[in-house]
Formats: sequence, structure tokens, C-alpha cells
Amino acid sequence: MSAGFGEADEEGKVREENLARLARVHGIRLLGPNVSGTFNLHASFNASGSPAHYLVPTNLAAICQGGYAFYDLLAAGGSRKMGVGWFVHTGNECDLGVTDFLELLGEEEEVQGILMYLETIRDPRRFLDVARRVSERKPIIVFKAGTTSAGARAALSHTGALAGRPEIYRGALAQAGIILCPAMELLIPLGHFLVERPPMKGDRVAIMTMGGSWGVSLVDELEGKGLMVPELSPKLQGRLRELGMPRRASTKNPVDIGAAGISYHLSLENVVQMAREILESEEVDALIFHGLGRPGMAKDQASDRARGIFLSLEVRLMREIQALEKEIQKPVVIGCCLSPWESQAVWDLNQEGIRTYQRLSDIAWNLVLARQREKFLSRLLR
Amino acid sequence: MSAGFGEADEEGKVREENLARLARVHGIRLLGPNVSGTFNLHASFNASGSPAHYLVPTNLAAICQGGYAFYDLLAAGGSRKMGVGWFVHTGNECDLGVTDFLELLGEEEEVQGILMYLETIRDPRRFLDVARRVSERKPIIVFKAGTTSAGARAALSHTGALAGRPEIYRGALAQAGIILCPAMELLIPLGHFLVERPPMKGDRVAIMTMGGSWGVSLVDELEGKGLMVPELSPKLQGRLRELGMPRRASTKNPVDIGAAGISYHLSLENVVQMAREILESEEVDALIFHGLGRPGMAKDQASDRARGIFLSLEVRLMREIQALEKEIQKPVVIGCCLSPWESQAVWDLNQEGIRTYQRLSDIAWNLVLARQREKFLSRLLR
Repeated sequence: MSAGFGEADEEGKVREENLARLARVHGIRLLGPNVSGTFNLHASFNASGSPAHYLVPTNLAAICQGGYAFYDLLAAGGSRKMGVGWFVHTGNECDLGVTDFLELLGEEEEVQGILMYLETIRDPRRFLDVARRVSERKPIIVFKAGTTSAGARAALSHTGALAGRPEIYRGALAQAGIILCPAMELLIPLGHFLVERPPMKGDRVAIMTMGGSWGVSLVDELEGKGLMVPELSPKLQGRLRELGMPRRASTKNPVDIGAAGISYHLSLENVVQMAREILESEEVDALIFHGLGRPGMAKDQASDRARGIFLSLEVRLMREIQALEKEIQKPVVIGCCLSPWESQAVWDLNQEGIRTYQRLSDIAWNLVLARQREKFLSRLLR
Repeated sequence: MSAGFGEADEEGKVREENLARLARVHGIRLLGPNVSGTFNLHASFNASGSPAHYLVPTNLAAICQGGYAFYDLLAAGGSRKMGVGWFVHTGNECDLGVTDFLELLGEEEEVQGILMYLETIRDPRRFLDVARRVSERKPIIVFKAGTTSAGARAALSHTGALAGRPEIYRGALAQAGIILCPAMELLIPLGHFLVERPPMKGDRVAIMTMGGSWGVSLVDELEGKGLMVPELSPKLQGRLRELGMPRRASTKNPVDIGAAGISYHLSLENVVQMAREILESEEVDALIFHGLGRPGMAKDQASDRARGIFLSLEVRLMREIQALEKEIQKPVVIGCCLSPWESQAVWDLNQEGIRTYQRLSDIAWNLVLARQREKFLSRLLR
């Protein structure tokens, strides 16, 4: 697990090569050097620097050329019940490299998705072959660092990696079915999204929102990334009116339930029924429900009465709308700009394992990349 | 404060026009309709739907064509001691519009920065004139929604706004010195950044990081947005070695203090001294200090001894490095991917009013736009 080898200087590089040669002669496989460890939570094995306290044994696996940053991501994920069950940090890869572990975890039945933090790919041809095979069965999500020239220089100092031209990587990885993750902080949430949500069979998204501005900005995010927010048909809009949407609130899409006045004009049952009819229609392929989860509802912040009315209404509503996903088999995404620590409803949902998404661009990326995954899979079937 | 006017349908539009005409005849100025309120915390005046509990009376002001979403942003900001002292929601703007309030708040001495959520600009020529004058004295930060065709349609349903072509807006707003905010969620943090940080006099950024991967990815974010992360001079790198950076840890930039082993090999004083010498050099214009703030340090999570060693070390280190900013007059940004609720050190800092940034892209955007602001101001002086 030592550092000070190929990533440090020429002398370290020579020592690393000697170490690799020695191991090869004696039939020993090496992980490292310059690594921080590995774990398999399903075998109760943790030889890493990540405190067990934050680890969540999910069916995701991670293969990383960096280590400590991923522990930070695990700590942030753990508090939202997200994480990985398998982890390996490959560091300088003087013997075993990312491709070996991709192959291994690709064959592991229980692994349903693989996250990768990559600075370099030392055996691109074999990597792409393996990736193509594995991604037919499970999503591979790659965050590629060192994509600028200065970033590549930093990668060289970090893991001795030669990072290569980004435009070449990008096309080749996409062809092998790999999902390119746009930000390190999205790696774990995106992995969960792709293995937990039903497939996104088309580009069309419906939005129900509590805040008109959230709706408008969410449309921009989705359409800016290639998805569509189509105007709902007069027939479907008519049904939403029948279910209680007043004239002043838009039913076009986004459907502005905030302007309609939830709990004053709309009953919980009717809002759920609206979500159901939108999802069941042939007009959209996914639903975003955004903006519930008001602050100030923790035990020490609000009266039992207020909690009984608002908090329980919000939690039940989001829970029931999320549950439509399984039944109707289209992705349902619950958005709220507050964290679980700022909104009691968001906290409660996360404790139940219901995901909530704070940022509009995260919601859009998750859906866009889920769509990309589904397109890749449906091309395979042709 | 009613809805159901121009944003709803033709009949509402007629009623709105009649209302405006009636007011004009009698010399009455109107705010709205279709608004959620206004406040001036410095005058203890709150006629808005935002609970006073979450409001922080800062020297920022906000002018918004949407309301409820901004209250969500205020709730999220409040828990990090961020917010605005003045707020107005202009809605359908049948009489008073965003330009009127921009002029008013521009002249208000105590207002140091103005945030705007805009879906449309009804009087573009006057707006740009006013904006140009105001932005000479204080930053104007605009989040423009309705930039896609579907987003524009959604804006029409939301505030009756005709949103207009994004490429035309963008150039004109930039020429008037306006900072375009890339995400709604960044509006308040970016406002604080621009009024609190010293000016960014050049493009060069230094990074000190606890995790090599964070460093590499941060370099990509910065360089991808037009800033530079230059390799430090041999002389400055030599000084960092003298101050305790071991051979295995890179001093090029990013400076990998994580690989160096903080608290084992590097004393707090030496890390602060390293930050000081980097900042004082002629080689960089800003410093990012990223990756401290470990989880598991709350009172019920760690022993007093562990808290005494790690927590107090981390808090002191980040506090002292942040303090260099004021003395040396270059921006210092503290990054940590954990929220205040996941990291006790991050919580402690936020309570003191020291900002921390969770996402790499947020850090990069803040610095890029601070640089843009400084370039605009220095062009004025020529």
C-alpha cells in the first residue's frame, strides 16, 4: 500500500519495475503500489482506509485508480444509504489493473453495476473488449479524470498515469456501452439510479412541480441535454382538470401543482391519481415530482399538529408517487433542493431508501444517462 | 398577490390589463399580479411567504420573476448562513418590473450585490442601460430560465413571460457586466462569493488537496472553464519540500498534502506556511484548499480524544488558511465534498461564517465568474 514508486520519480519507477518483475518470477499477483486498499462487504472483508461505519453493502462495485477521494464519496453516500459492496483501488497498476478487476466483477453474479474512477487505461484494446461484454449484462459507469492537459499532468503526479486525449476516449468508451459520468460527486448516485430505476424507454419527461420556477428551469436542463418535455394532450389535461387542477394552474407540462394549492384544493389521493394517469399515458416515459419537503418540520421545529398535517402529507404523497414506478415500470424521480438535514420529509424518505435529488442538473443527467443505457441495450437486441 | 391573470389565459390577460389601467389612472403603482411577496429584513419588513426563521439579513438583494423556488433556495442557504436582505417577486409585472427594482436596489447604498431570477425582460433597452450603470458599482448575478423552446413555453405558463432567444440575451447581458449564473442552486452561493471574496486578479489557481483524485478532477474543472493550474516554479516547490513535503508527494500543483500525511509528517504551522508562501508568490491568483473535514467527528460519534486531535486540527487549519485571504487579498476557497451535517469540521466552519464548497464544479464556477467580474471592472478603469 506504499506510495513513492512510479508516481514519484524515476528512481521510484525503477523500484516499481523491479518489484513487478520479482513478483512475476515467483507467480505472485500484485495490487498496487500506491494504493489505499480494497474491500468486499459481502464477505465482511475490509482492507481499506474507509471506516466501516459509513459503508453500505449494496450491489454496486467500484474500481478506482484513486482512493481517498472515493472514501469521501462513500462517506457522503452512506448518509443517504448509498454506497458500494465491492471496492478496489488499483493505484499504479504494476501488475493487476482496472481491466482485470472489471473482468472479475463483471462475472460476479451479485454485482449489478460497476463504477470506475479512471485516470488512464493501460491496455485500451483489452479494456474495451472486456467492457463491451460486461456492459451487455450490467452498467459500467466511468468518471474519467485527467481530461485536460493540466489534468493529465496532475494525473501523472498522482498515479503515474498517462491520461491520453479525451475525445478519443469518449467515443471509444461510449461504443463499448460505457456510461461517462459528468462529475465525481455523481458517480455513486448515478450507479444507484441505473440499477434501481426501471428502464427509460423514450425521451419524454413529465414534470409535476410545487414551484413554477423549478419547473421552467428543469425543462431547460432536460431539453438542453437532449430529452423532451412535451405538452400533454388536451385529453390528459382535461383529466387533470377533472382531478382538481384549477384554471390558474398550468396542466400543460410542467403541471404546476404548487399554483394549484396542495392540501387546499387538491387531495393527496387526487395528486397521486394525477401522477398515475400521466405515467400510464402513452405520452411520457418518466415523471419528475419536484418541490415538496418543506423545511422546519423536525421535532424541535414544529408542533405535533403541524407535523401531523404537513409532514405526514408530504411524506405519504412522495412515497405513494414513488411507488407508482414499480407498478407502471417508468422512472419516477423525487426532487427537492433541500438536503435530508434541512427537510424532515426528505430525511424520512431517505431513511426508507427512497432517493431524493437536490440539483436539477443531477436529475437531468440521471435521466439522460439512463436513456443512453436503455438505447445501448435495445441496439443489442436488434 | 393573486394568480389567475395573464399567466392563466386570455380572460386573465384582459383583467390584468384593466387592473393596470385603473391603477395608472389613479396614480397607484402595482407589484404583480401573480406574486408571492416581498421583504426588507433591514427594515424588519416581511410580506412574503418565506418563514422568517430561515432568513439571513445579508447585504445581498434578490429580484425574482418566480417566488416559491427562491424561498426553497433561501431555506437551503439559511442553514449555511447565506441569504438575502432584500427580496421582491415581480410576477406578471403589469406595472412595476424587474428594471424598476434593479434601479432602486442599485441606488441603495447598503446593497452590495443583486441576484435575479429572470424568465423574460420586458424592456430590454432600459434594462441593459440600468444594468450597465449598476454593475459598475455592484455585481448583478442573473439566472435566466426559459432558455430552451420548451422552457420558454413553460415560462409563458408560469409568469406569462415571452422568454426570447438565449444567444441574444447572453451576449447583451455580458456586455452590460451581468454575471450569468449557470444553475439556480448556485445563485445565492455565487452572490456571497462575489461580494465576500477579494478580487481574482488573474487566471492562475493553486490547489492543495488531501485526495489526489480530487486534485486531478479539480484541475479538469478549472482548465475546462478557462482558468489555469500552472506548475509551480522549482524555487517554490523547493520551499514546500523544506517545509516538510516528502519526496513521494507531488508539489507541482496540485500540492498533494494528503499523500504527504498531514499530522504525521506535516505540522499545522507548516501547512499554513505552505499556503501562505503559495499565495504570496507571484505565481498564482487564488488558492483552493480541498479535502479536509473527515466524517464521524460529531460528539456522539467520536471520543473526546479523537475530536481533540483530528477535529480541532482540521478546523484550525482551515480557519487559518481561510484567514490568509484577507491578509494577502487573493481568493481562498475551502472545499469538502461533505455537507455541514456529515462533517463536524465543516459544520463548525459554516457556523463561523466560513464558506465551504461541496462540488468541484461549484468551486470552478465561482472562481471563473469572480474572474469575469474582475475583468469587467478593470476594463472600466482603462
